[in-house]
Amino acid sequence: MRRSHPLASALLAGACALAVATAASAQSAETVRTAEVLRDAALRDNVALDYVTQVTTRFGARPAGSPAEQAAAAWSAEYLKSIGFQNVRIQEFPLVGWERGEDSAALLGHNPQSLVVAALGHSIPTPAGGVEGEVVRFTTLEALQAAPDGSLRGKIAYVDAGQLIPMQDGSGYGPLTRIRGAGPAEAARKGALAFVMRSVGSDMHRMPHTGTTRYVDGKVPLPGFALSGPDASQLSRLMDISEREGGPAPRLRLTSTARIYETRSQNVIADLPGRTRPQEVIVLGSHLDSWDLGTGAIDDAAGGAITIAAAKAIMQHGAPARTIRVILFGAEEVDQPNNTGNGGGAYLRSLSAEELANHVFTGESDFGADRVYALGLPVGAQRSDFARAAARVLYPIGVLPSADPETSGGADIGPIVQAGVPVFRLNQDGTRYFDLHHTADDTLDKIDPAQMSQNVAAWTALIWLAADSDVDFRAMRPAAPAGR
Amino acid sequence: MRRSHPLASALLAGACALAVATAASAQSAETVRTAEVLRDAALRDNVALDYVTQVTTRFGARPAGSPAEQAAAAWSAEYLKSIGFQNVRIQEFPLVGWERGEDSAALLGHNPQSLVVAALGHSIPTPAGGVEGEVVRFTTLEALQAAPDGSLRGKIAYVDAGQLIPMQDGSGYGPLTRIRGAGPAEAARKGALAFVMRSVGSDMHRMPHTGTTRYVDGKVPLPGFALSGPDASQLSRLMDISEREGGPAPRLRLTSTARIYETRSQNVIADLPGRTRPQEVIVLGSHLDSWDLGTGAIDDAAGGAITIAAAKAIMQHGAPARTIRVILFGAEEVDQPNNTGNGGGAYLRSLSAEELANHVFTGESDFGADRVYALGLPVGAQRSDFARAAARVLYPIGVLPSADPETSGGADIGPIVQAGVPVFRLNQDGTRYFDLHHTADDTLDKIDPAQMSQNVAAWTALIWLAADSDVDFRAMRPAAPAGR
Repeated sequence: MRRSHPLASALLAGACALAVATAASAQSAETVRTAEVLRDAALRDNVALDYVTQVTTRFGARPAGSPAEQAAAAWSAEYLKSIGFQNVRIQEFPLVGWERGEDSAALLGHNPQSLVVAALGHSIPTPAGGVEGEVVRFTTLEALQAAPDGSLRGKIAYVDAGQLIPMQDGSGYGPLTRIRGAGPAEAARKGALAFVMRSVGSDMHRMPHTGTTRYVDGKVPLPGFALSGPDASQLSRLMDISEREGGPAPRLRLTSTARIYETRSQNVIADLPGRTRPQEVIVLGSHLDSWDLGTGAIDDAAGGAITIAAAKAIMQHGAPARTIRVILFGAEEVDQPNNTGNGGGAYLRSLSAEELANHVFTGESDFGADRVYALGLPVGAQRSDFARAAARVLYPIGVLPSADPETSGGADIGPIVQAGVPVFRLNQDGTRYFDLHHTADDTLDKIDPAQMSQNVAAWTALIWLAADSDVDFRAMRPAAPAGR
Repeated sequence: MRRSHPLASALLAGACALAVATAASAQSAETVRTAEVLRDAALRDNVALDYVTQVTTRFGARPAGSPAEQAAAAWSAEYLKSIGFQNVRIQEFPLVGWERGEDSAALLGHNPQSLVVAALGHSIPTPAGGVEGEVVRFTTLEALQAAPDGSLRGKIAYVDAGQLIPMQDGSGYGPLTRIRGAGPAEAARKGALAFVMRSVGSDMHRMPHTGTTRYVDGKVPLPGFALSGPDASQLSRLMDISEREGGPAPRLRLTSTARIYETRSQNVIADLPGRTRPQEVIVLGSHLDSWDLGTGAIDDAAGGAITIAAAKAIMQHGAPARTIRVILFGAEEVDQPNNTGNGGGAYLRSLSAEELANHVFTGESDFGADRVYALGLPVGAQRSDFARAAARVLYPIGVLPSADPETSGGADIGPIVQAGVPVFRLNQDGTRYFDLHHTADDTLDKIDPAQMSQNVAAWTALIWLAADSDVDFRAMRPAAPAGR
């Protein structure tokens, strides 16, 4: 547990002296005061709940490349125009879509049972009638990797590495999502018929967590499935009983009618043009597509809602110096090599070198709608006047400076970040995010309007500070540590 | 809110004087001391978790009359023998079974969406290909009843009366379950194609709550369905949008391949024979069947687990005067006229008049596995020495006397109670019961072992008190209120 927080202490101490120190800095006292006013106005009223309600209700699930994603994009563009955004456009790109069809899992034998399962995204289908085989259990990906080649021939590989541990920063996700990514390919190498895993999730509800698995040589090599937490526990208990009693291992029948198809996806791009330096662009990213099982409220209509509401709150005050660009990316939930297949890659490819160089800052909202607790900045900005101003404006709503510099963004803004655009992160509470993520339960009712308003307020204040200044985040180099 | 509790105060004051007052009462001081010892032993160790784990894991869902229910009954009989019960027998009876098959709901039109739905138990199927119609919404059963005859011709009746309000005693259930029972028949009278309702449940997870609806002239007159809470909210929001914008009402396509079939169910009966008056029987009831969506952990393998564990705890001490009979009833989840179709009716019909007259007391555990908070006794026993002894033994584990006399039992013991057998109720906390009840989420992981042990301890102590005494609950008449 990290309790001492020297960066936060240093920045907050400095923030008190900010008003008198700003004459020579990039953050004018007036800009800071306006950020505080905008922050408080956004706490009271913003359009986030309206947008997330409408887009999830009108269109339901919005799988990448589906008619629902396309219709939601067209509607969102009209919505953005109607509330005052300018230069609203839809940027199309081709995509290989994936459609689940029907999937099922059944325990065979004397006491047959149905298990609740979902095919992993982009899995190949089973043959008609499904695949049947004895289940071989592993408790880690490494154990599956260590199985002899051919040892799973005619069998079904099952990895139960336990439930995801919920953490504020979502760091329980990484270790388990490796299994989802690499598991089918590893199982295929050992000769398995299919791959099954405990869902990457922290809940114990009867809803599997889907998500994309990895391509090998142009396709997912095996049908891959996730069991809900309770169903994985059930299967593992049955394996325990069979081992204890010396009975035959459980046998599963798995079916999937998944298919891939040629389609298109699109980014929805909307600007609040800058007052004095409109060529300088700050990109606020989120994604419009969702998994097929839920209605994608927390993943990620909420991100669109938060970024739209922040830009709209600033618009109501009047445009800042720089352009604020809201992008609802398409096809985020697609894991094709180097993100070339998704909306982030398509956006990057659309930019000239000069336009890219004028992308001064970017951040992404793709972690639900709960409260923001920390701000991560590029390493060079961490001890800057900008950081001090942000700390001052965000501290009253419970947002502290993060000690970790931000470097990556996420899948949507990742391509422009890799191309050199400086990135921030407003870290938000993910403790319950992986109860819902990629399940049927990702629905509007899971959004807490009060937490979402705090989130919008943090985005509003931060984006105003960055947009109404001439801070050059690219030019910033790490500062020497402040004296203690 | 009922705060004053004169019955509890009177009984607990009296309980302190019990040890000296018992010479002339039905409860010997030794019996009371043994109840305390058995209570504390059951708190530390009991077989409830073992039974509920095994039966839900080995057999999964156990619909009334299904092969799974039959296999679970045969296995449970062997289990009961193996832990020392005597005279273990299986009592078969014929049953009309119901099998869900496949069911689905889809919103039609420009932005089609799937909704998560479950056919109500014993619903008739839709024609192949389903039924399609405009949705007409009602917010109460009375509003549906008030619709003009024929006004729903070609349409789908939808009742959204809001979420069930969770309460400790489960009293939020009754008002809503009326809709489930009577809704399809009312919709049929108005000419509707099908009936849909918000699930009778207190959760907002994407899992519908099934449950039986009422027969009219030998069958359910319409296909009836329950939407999950989030899906009902989604449909109702879409209806709001359509009303606000003057658009067409949402249209639904509903499908169900449900069928009924001739089968058999069975009661599993096991005795701990009485030491001195074995002909006097105390029946502990629960049911072995479950709905098909979950594995019936809280409804009602837990009830079997609790009553088996209580009788087993008493067995380990040595038999009491009277016989303790554990019955795992079959086919409780069947709502045929006067319970004639279920295990409770079959058991009653198997008894001679003399045997019935020797059924001295009964209670049922069918409300999950959370903690017991109150004891309801027959009205005549409420101010008896027995009540004082029970209050003394149960108070230390948080169980107070209920001010409400118990008269009904439940569906399993209901038939013998209606035939005159005195009944008690150990009221248990149902605050989260209707989050899970009749859903896919009714699985083992929802059981809290610590609360279940308290529950077993309460049953153990109470049953010992009743079984090792000569209290005649039938002969008891209401006492005059005690002086205040």
